[in-house]
Amino acid sequence: MKSYRQMNKAELTECKAQLEKAFEEAKAKGLQLDMSRGKPAAMQLDLVMPMMDALTSKSELISESGMDCRNYGGPDGLPEAKALMAAMIDAKPEQVVVCGNSSLNIMYDTVSRSMTHGVCGSTPWCKLEEIKFLCPVPGYDRHFKVTQFFGIQMINIPMSPEGPDMDLVENYVNHDPAVKGIWCVPKYSNPQGYSYSDETVRRFAALTPAAEDFRIYWDNAYCVHHLYNGAENQDHILNILEECEKAGHPDLAFEFCSTSKVSFPGAGVAAVASSERNLEWIKASMHVQTIGHDKINQLRHVRYYKDFDGLMQQMQLHGDMMRSKFEAVEKRLAEALDGLEIGTWTKPRGGYFISFDALPGCAKAIVAKCKEAGVTLTGAGATFPYGLDPQDSNIRIAPSFPTPREMSDATEVFVLCVKLVSVEKLLENA
Amino acid sequence: MKSYRQMNKAELTECKAQLEKAFEEAKAKGLQLDMSRGKPAAMQLDLVMPMMDALTSKSELISESGMDCRNYGGPDGLPEAKALMAAMIDAKPEQVVVCGNSSLNIMYDTVSRSMTHGVCGSTPWCKLEEIKFLCPVPGYDRHFKVTQFFGIQMINIPMSPEGPDMDLVENYVNHDPAVKGIWCVPKYSNPQGYSYSDETVRRFAALTPAAEDFRIYWDNAYCVHHLYNGAENQDHILNILEECEKAGHPDLAFEFCSTSKVSFPGAGVAAVASSERNLEWIKASMHVQTIGHDKINQLRHVRYYKDFDGLMQQMQLHGDMMRSKFEAVEKRLAEALDGLEIGTWTKPRGGYFISFDALPGCAKAIVAKCKEAGVTLTGAGATFPYGLDPQDSNIRIAPSFPTPREMSDATEVFVLCVKLVSVEKLLENA
Repeated sequence: MKSYRQMNKAELTECKAQLEKAFEEAKAKGLQLDMSRGKPAAMQLDLVMPMMDALTSKSELISESGMDCRNYGGPDGLPEAKALMAAMIDAKPEQVVVCGNSSLNIMYDTVSRSMTHGVCGSTPWCKLEEIKFLCPVPGYDRHFKVTQFFGIQMINIPMSPEGPDMDLVENYVNHDPAVKGIWCVPKYSNPQGYSYSDETVRRFAALTPAAEDFRIYWDNAYCVHHLYNGAENQDHILNILEECEKAGHPDLAFEFCSTSKVSFPGAGVAAVASSERNLEWIKASMHVQTIGHDKINQLRHVRYYKDFDGLMQQMQLHGDMMRSKFEAVEKRLAEALDGLEIGTWTKPRGGYFISFDALPGCAKAIVAKCKEAGVTLTGAGATFPYGLDPQDSNIRIAPSFPTPREMSDATEVFVLCVKLVSVEKLLENA
Repeated sequence: MKSYRQMNKAELTECKAQLEKAFEEAKAKGLQLDMSRGKPAAMQLDLVMPMMDALTSKSELISESGMDCRNYGGPDGLPEAKALMAAMIDAKPEQVVVCGNSSLNIMYDTVSRSMTHGVCGSTPWCKLEEIKFLCPVPGYDRHFKVTQFFGIQMINIPMSPEGPDMDLVENYVNHDPAVKGIWCVPKYSNPQGYSYSDETVRRFAALTPAAEDFRIYWDNAYCVHHLYNGAENQDHILNILEECEKAGHPDLAFEFCSTSKVSFPGAGVAAVASSERNLEWIKASMHVQTIGHDKINQLRHVRYYKDFDGLMQQMQLHGDMMRSKFEAVEKRLAEALDGLEIGTWTKPRGGYFISFDALPGCAKAIVAKCKEAGVTLTGAGATFPYGLDPQDSNIRIAPSFPTPREMSDATEVFVLCVKLVSVEKLLENA
């Protein structure tokens, strides 16, 4: 196909007319498709339904250590649940505290606790003039919302397929004592699906922060979310807690994970892993905050999956379902856009998203056009702090919720809108 | 029996010798009994086990409004769960947000949010020099731990069978802008089992706080926890939200409740109820904090209890079990202590505790003696802010966890220790 960027004004004008016609036809179909959020599809949740039978009125709800899981007690989580969650992120069970249903909630609470009480004895952030967080971009909108909510200044750090720009990270972290944290999704990142290289992880572990209360927020949300089978087709990242220990900085990172996209979103189990010192700090406030988390649900997960192998067997089935959707999107994108020079996109081997970069200044318009034709995308800008994409270029595509067929239809509308908006943009400058 | 306080030194000395002998015999039994926490007994939890069958792999996990409860969405709670929780506290469903498993967690988060963001747009508490909470005493230790954790100054307010001393409450709240809250357990209070009179509730609703961000923390933890059947044998309190509305102060109270002692502690459902304005404030941060709470567990509760009548039928069975334990304690206390003038205790018609007041200066010693004989009580002082009972007199008895027989044995040890410590105290002054 001829690149749109090589077209002259007449060609672009003709192209625009065709695309407008096609857009009207697409609109007439009255589609109602949602690729806005990383929601699992019903079919994927159906797979997990036998978990509902893992505990019944006939079950013993006594944990391995003899605790009655129906009653109060065990605020750090069941030992067997610690073991399961630890295996997901390759940590040691004693590094893990198992909490409620939401890792986002643990992250929010960690920031909130730092605001009111300071990190491990440091000055509470609410007493300081200025607090900054580094935000690799594009990134996860809900991370940015947490720091924004607490009035923390956010600084964009560009992402590459190797991870965040570590020269920039080192420069900020090692020299600016106002920099207290960085949001990371190290494996199959949201939205690009990039996994941090070994060098990146090691450079993280080797940071020598200007602020003693700087911490890495390592949100390993997609730790077990491979699209392909076989280790050689999957991404692997180094164990951040281990690398931090090796580098002599055991307290540098908080790691978060959950089964939200393993079992049931909202009814899964979430955990935080870190050093003994960091965990003591977390537990000191957690024990004031709650008598304990839902141990019955923790036990339900353990009884159902049995062990990490059991969990991974089910994740392979999830991966099979997700792969067909990702491939449907990628196929459509390639068919429609290869050679046009109006967009690039990532081809992740795992996670929940594809990241699309349109021509600068086009993302908002593309999302609006899609909406007009009945296809809901994540709001343009959402992948940046404050919702501000300086290039107005990045769009997050979430293939998980629709069926492969719907995903294919939605992508058809998407590429049409990309073309139309791009042609309009090129005509502006022609 | 002759009052210990009428005994002369010789009589007391003889009495002490007998008691010491009895104490050594009790110690030799090697008891291991725990009346320290308001933990439901296993038998009570057994009653709830059929809830484990309320949702199975064959179940439709679609809510009445068509929401797939297995997936993300519905951050305020399922409408049918709102209705159930609202009925427990006689509120309207639209006044309720259903959260996770812990009402303590909601209270903590409410205080924490007030610290970092201020109440409904007021100055964040962390920016203020001084924050005070009123604490009716004796009260619930975990309430006091929350305010202590945030460095909030706590002020003791004496309790009577009508509720907190309202003259004092009005004096503080209506004149001191640093007073931002009061901890209340209005029905079957912890630990006395007192229920606030209608006049007390109306005086709460009529408060005209000096601080615009003053709120009543109305922890209706024992709203449905009657020991006796029949409305005439149960305590009833006025609806605080309704009274606040009538008084023209709709935003004055946050009400909290949970099924922790209805279904499973730790695996129940908790809720907060308040005015529209207060709920908007709560939801604004809750939506940053989490994508949503565990809707599957909410649905499980709704499907199991069906409605408020179903829930109350089960609470009647709970009440029957609890009553036998309370009565076992009260019988032993009366048999052993009536007429001795060394202690008084409450006779609640509901809730989880009996409050015992020993001679001043004796509580710590009694608890220590009990421990020596294998009976664990709530630490003396725990029912007061900072763990400081100015009289060293109050002891909380939690009859819920042991069996009636164990409870009877434990109380036998308890009265023995009360006698022994009291005699020692009287001898000091004889």
